[in-house]
Amino acid sequence: MTALRQAPEWQAARWFNGAPLALADLRGRVVLLHAFQMLCPGCAAHALPQMQRVHRAFPRERLAVVGLHTVFEHHEAQGPAALEAFLHEYRYEFPVGVDAHDAGDPLPRTMRAYAMRGTPTLVLIDAAGRLRQQHFGIQDDLALGAALGSLLAEASAAG
Amino acid sequence: MTALRQAPEWQAARWFNGAPLALADLRGRVVLLHAFQMLCPGCAAHALPQMQRVHRAFPRERLAVVGLHTVFEHHEAQGPAALEAFLHEYRYEFPVGVDAHDAGDPLPRTMRAYAMRGTPTLVLIDAAGRLRQQHFGIQDDLALGAALGSLLAEASAAG
Amino acid sequence: MTALRQAPEWQAARWFNGAPLALADLRGRVVLLHAFQMLCPGCAAHALPQMQRVHRAFPRERLAVVGLHTVFEHHEAQGPAALEAFLHEYRYEFPVGVDAHDAGDPLPRTMRAYAMRGTPTLVLIDAAGRLRQQHFGIQDDLALGAALGSLLAEASAAG
Amino acid sequence: MTALRQAPEWQAARWFNGAPLALADLRGRVVLLHAFQMLCPGCAAHALPQMQRVHRAFPRERLAVVGLHTVFEHHEAQGPAALEAFLHEYRYEFPVGVDAHDAGDPLPRTMRAYAMRGTPTLVLIDAAGRLRQQHFGIQDDLALGAALGSLLAEASAAG
Repeated sequence: MTALRQAPEWQAARWFNGAPLALADLRGRVVLLHAFQMLCPGCAAHALPQMQRVHRAFPRERLAVVGLHTVFEHHEAQGPAALEAFLHEYRYEFPVGVDAHDAGDPLPRTMRAYAMRGTPTLVLIDAAGRLRQQHFGIQDDLALGAALGSLLAEASAAG
Repeated sequence: MTALRQAPEWQAARWFNGAPLALADLRGRVVLLHAFQMLCPGCAAHALPQMQRVHRAFPRERLAVVGLHTVFEHHEAQGPAALEAFLHEYRYEFPVGVDAHDAGDPLPRTMRAYAMRGTPTLVLIDAAGRLRQQHFGIQDDLALGAALGSLLAEASAAG
Repeated sequence: MTALRQAPEWQAARWFNGAPLALADLRGRVVLLHAFQMLCPGCAAHALPQMQRVHRAFPRERLAVVGLHTVFEHHEAQGPAALEAFLHEYRYEFPVGVDAHDAGDPLPRTMRAYAMRGTPTLVLIDAAGRLRQQHFGIQDDLALGAALGSLLAEASAAG
Repeated sequence: MTALRQAPEWQAARWFNGAPLALADLRGRVVLLHAFQMLCPGCAAHALPQMQRVHRAFPRERLAVVGLHTVFEHHEAQGPAALEAFLHEYRYEFPVGVDAHDAGDPLPRTMRAYAMRGTPTLVLIDAAGRLRQQHFGIQDDLALGAALGSLLAEASAAG
């Protein structure tokens, strides 16, 4: 049996759709973290609408959906003002953090901490704050629903 | 807290895609029972393709998908020969039983035993044989996936 | 330049959704003839809903949508009573003829007359009764719309 | 009968996916002009993929697809560098002009000249350069295909 490791804290320079949020604030809830870029077609066409469906389908006191804008290319076109316009036009309602950059590093900090390969990346964190799944690319609703249902049942049994 | 009741046994006159199957044979596995009619548009366009996706996505030793042809209208057009042609043309691979009729009763027996209101109806039975969910109509993949994931986690914890 | 030939008359044993219809009755209108079988998945999932969209989108005095049930397999499962139940359940509103069979011939007469290779087959007939396009398989809405728009413009110019 | 008016010339500050293009250069071809904004959800999810389908489905010597980036809001987020990244990520291949602005006017010039109400707007121009259809909002493939087929047939008859 593999020991599960704690999920690294994310590091956001600013937040949209709500106050700054730390992973520790969400202990007791299952967390679906979605790393995206606003100009990534797989994010805009598939993964972000899926996040919105998850955000609406599950009780928020049990499951938290968190977006993270992990910009690693087209930096000039995907700044905070552009992201704000994007979130407004698409009516996304879940909290979105802007992954922080170290000076001179094109890869943002949380993306490095999780060793993400690109966008979209979906990360599942259980109610005890442990990293349970990290998936690069598109995932279908059936598989994502099953993974979420499994972690929610575990949290219920533990609680 | 409500006591959970055992799921009633289904009563099939014959089977396609495999040998006759009793609910008791599936103890230890989560069961997704799908009551359908081949000429029901919501079944053909949505629920049956969804069953096929579930059948392919989950390990069969943990989750069993079972179709049940619960004919309560258009009896002359939905007989076993028609069903066989239908299953062949659509390449459905999961086991399908034909719900048995009592003489003179348009509603078949399993449909009565479960008090189903129509087709499609999705029934979730846990690994201990208890009825956990019965849903008349279309269900989206996210909600169905979550319900399946929850029962599978429960079965793992119990096993 | 190829001389265009007149489209062969269809030969229907009976009609649903209206009185018997001859190709000659439709002179002056563009005709979209759709040969299908009710248990053909490509017909049920794609081509028949497309016919319904065409039937609703274009003025009926300029464009006639005609279905033809060209049964060449699963004869026992696709008889007129089964077709009637199918058309009723799916709420198809356009006229549908049942392609007539000669005794002992599994292929129906109109299917032979047009040398169709299977279902779905879409046939476009211009306002002068000439065969303009015959397509076996799925066609997308953009291509079908363009073909219909072209024949309708021609009919307007001629009228 | 209404006299048809010539389509106004568009006024682009720069071009992507090819050399600068004037409407007069396209005389003899049917033109599908698509006014969009990269952060408009109806454009990104529906109208731009539809333009790509049209661009691939029709012969280019008969039909020209032209995109026009008519930015009237979120100017800071939808500049040329952002548009270039967007077109690159989505692999759009048809020529796209950037609608020119007069100093101090949030509405760009071509948008004013055509009295467009927003994005997406689809404009159909016939082979003689006349404005034939202007549609604000989403249009389905069947209707767009029919309109294009009609203008192409007209052009063939005239040519």
